[in-house]
Amino acid sequence: MSRRYAVGLDVGGTDIKAALVDDHGRIACKTVRPTGAERGPEAVLADMADLAREVIAGAGVAHSSVVGVSIGAPGPLSPSRGIIFRAANLPGFENVPIRDELARRVALPAVFDNDGNAAAYGEFWVGAGRHVADMVLLTLGTGVGAGVILSGRLLHGHFENAAELGHTIVEVGGRACRCGQRGCLEQYSSASGVARRAVEELQAGADSILTRSTASFEAITSKAVADAARSGDPLAARIWDDACRYLAVACVNAQHCFNPAMVVLGGGMSAAGDLLIEGVRGHLHRQRWSLAEDLPEVVLAELGNDAGMIGAGGLMFAAAGGD
Amino acid sequence: MSRRYAVGLDVGGTDIKAALVDDHGRIACKTVRPTGAERGPEAVLADMADLAREVIAGAGVAHSSVVGVSIGAPGPLSPSRGIIFRAANLPGFENVPIRDELARRVALPAVFDNDGNAAAYGEFWVGAGRHVADMVLLTLGTGVGAGVILSGRLLHGHFENAAELGHTIVEVGGRACRCGQRGCLEQYSSASGVARRAVEELQAGADSILTRSTASFEAITSKAVADAARSGDPLAARIWDDACRYLAVACVNAQHCFNPAMVVLGGGMSAAGDLLIEGVRGHLHRQRWSLAEDLPEVVLAELGNDAGMIGAGGLMFAAAGGD
Repeated sequence: MSRRYAVGLDVGGTDIKAALVDDHGRIACKTVRPTGAERGPEAVLADMADLAREVIAGAGVAHSSVVGVSIGAPGPLSPSRGIIFRAANLPGFENVPIRDELARRVALPAVFDNDGNAAAYGEFWVGAGRHVADMVLLTLGTGVGAGVILSGRLLHGHFENAAELGHTIVEVGGRACRCGQRGCLEQYSSASGVARRAVEELQAGADSILTRSTASFEAITSKAVADAARSGDPLAARIWDDACRYLAVACVNAQHCFNPAMVVLGGGMSAAGDLLIEGVRGHLHRQRWSLAEDLPEVVLAELGNDAGMIGAGGLMFAAAGGD
Repeated sequence: MSRRYAVGLDVGGTDIKAALVDDHGRIACKTVRPTGAERGPEAVLADMADLAREVIAGAGVAHSSVVGVSIGAPGPLSPSRGIIFRAANLPGFENVPIRDELARRVALPAVFDNDGNAAAYGEFWVGAGRHVADMVLLTLGTGVGAGVILSGRLLHGHFENAAELGHTIVEVGGRACRCGQRGCLEQYSSASGVARRAVEELQAGADSILTRSTASFEAITSKAVADAARSGDPLAARIWDDACRYLAVACVNAQHCFNPAMVVLGGGMSAAGDLLIEGVRGHLHRQRWSLAEDLPEVVLAELGNDAGMIGAGGLMFAAAGGD
């Protein structure tokens, strides 16, 4: 049988990323375009269709070898109905039937899922989790995205909103989250959360090499905090260690909820590599229970920024019965 | 087709409960016997086989109408291999092939699962969760047992140890748990945890009507704490409210992990009824997020102490393809 392809779209608040993905999870062609969400759903949908056609043409494959188009997008949304209810960073997207609209425009079948789920499926399909059937992904970026694979399938739940692990509570009565809760994981362990905590402490007068290496507080990133922590800066080291400690709690809780073989850490903060993974593992080994030997392996993601596109493509193959 | 039956066994540290359950989840005959675990696995297995025969005979049904025998037991264990690895309250049970041993003795097919899972399956099959497909059970007793039903099936996970929600961490660096972790849910929200916290505060000199209503600190139970809380005793009210607050955190985290339609609260503490359910719902409504309308319904269990036996029976029907 000749090679088959799927278009994977990763729709974010900043960019739309598009790739033509083959049935082995390899990217044949990819491109990116600013989302320009302020132009409204109609313009964004037109761009999505354009980008799909562009990567098919760019790879030079026949339209007939493309099984469909697959979208990973920010929620809350309904994969089964193909609708984005509303997305914080896609203004104007209210109850948009994004899946069927795109299918119509490109004249191909379309599937649709949460961006965290798509990335998790990518890592499961051809990334860090390719040898396991039960896996949890946490992406540490602006928020903490997540996806849960159980017996080789994404978990969606009754309201199709499962695996929002960034909003599990790790500190009762803790930091206020944009979601309305307090003490959510993403307040402590997202890239933004780490940077924000550093800025708050510096604004309150804390001493740190962070103030010497950046022009303004606004320029402080989780990478700057990681670098300063590596240099032995006490403030940065404490904030970084805290992020790792709460991630270890999230791993323990994932262990006792889902009992996965593996927890994969991706997103911007995973660029810190060992500083992240050893930090989390250290806390995990100090916190683990003794009742069973069921601690998941904790590893770095392997697909980087391509995880969402590749995973979206994989979901299309899974839906088409091709994988 | 004539009525079919399964034997459901609920093996605990104190008692073995046995029932003959019909394919509508009704109990045709039940009995109970002290476990006497100190006699060792051989004697306990002999009793399990006796009890199975006893409830079949007691109901007066033909052996041929019994599809099998099903066991709910304390873990860690392997449902797929039918082995108890070791159980804290079944001394001497180390790597016991309990399922196949029982099957041999009663000459019937046998299945086997964790006691929390069996109870969850019972509530899902014919109890509080009978109208939903995605459900979480928390049983608030000596510990916090749990089971998770997703799309009508029990979640087991890679190590077959999923849904140990009593050991999810709700308070980082909190109270030491027998499992080796700190801050586990069961330290705050189990019947034993509630009683223990009250005793600790009384021993430290706290004032409460609890000291007037009981002869000794050892006699203080979660029921006594609930009764005192209902009477307006400040210490008891605070400890009870704390238990409800942490249960609300567990519900929020279950929401964001599994996204179930329902969380069912069972076990000894659920006898407090409204005091429990309204307490948890109150905290839940104060803590809930605003990003999606996906809060699970939180309700009391309906099967009481029979949940484990009935659920075990249901698992036998499910395995036999009869339900």
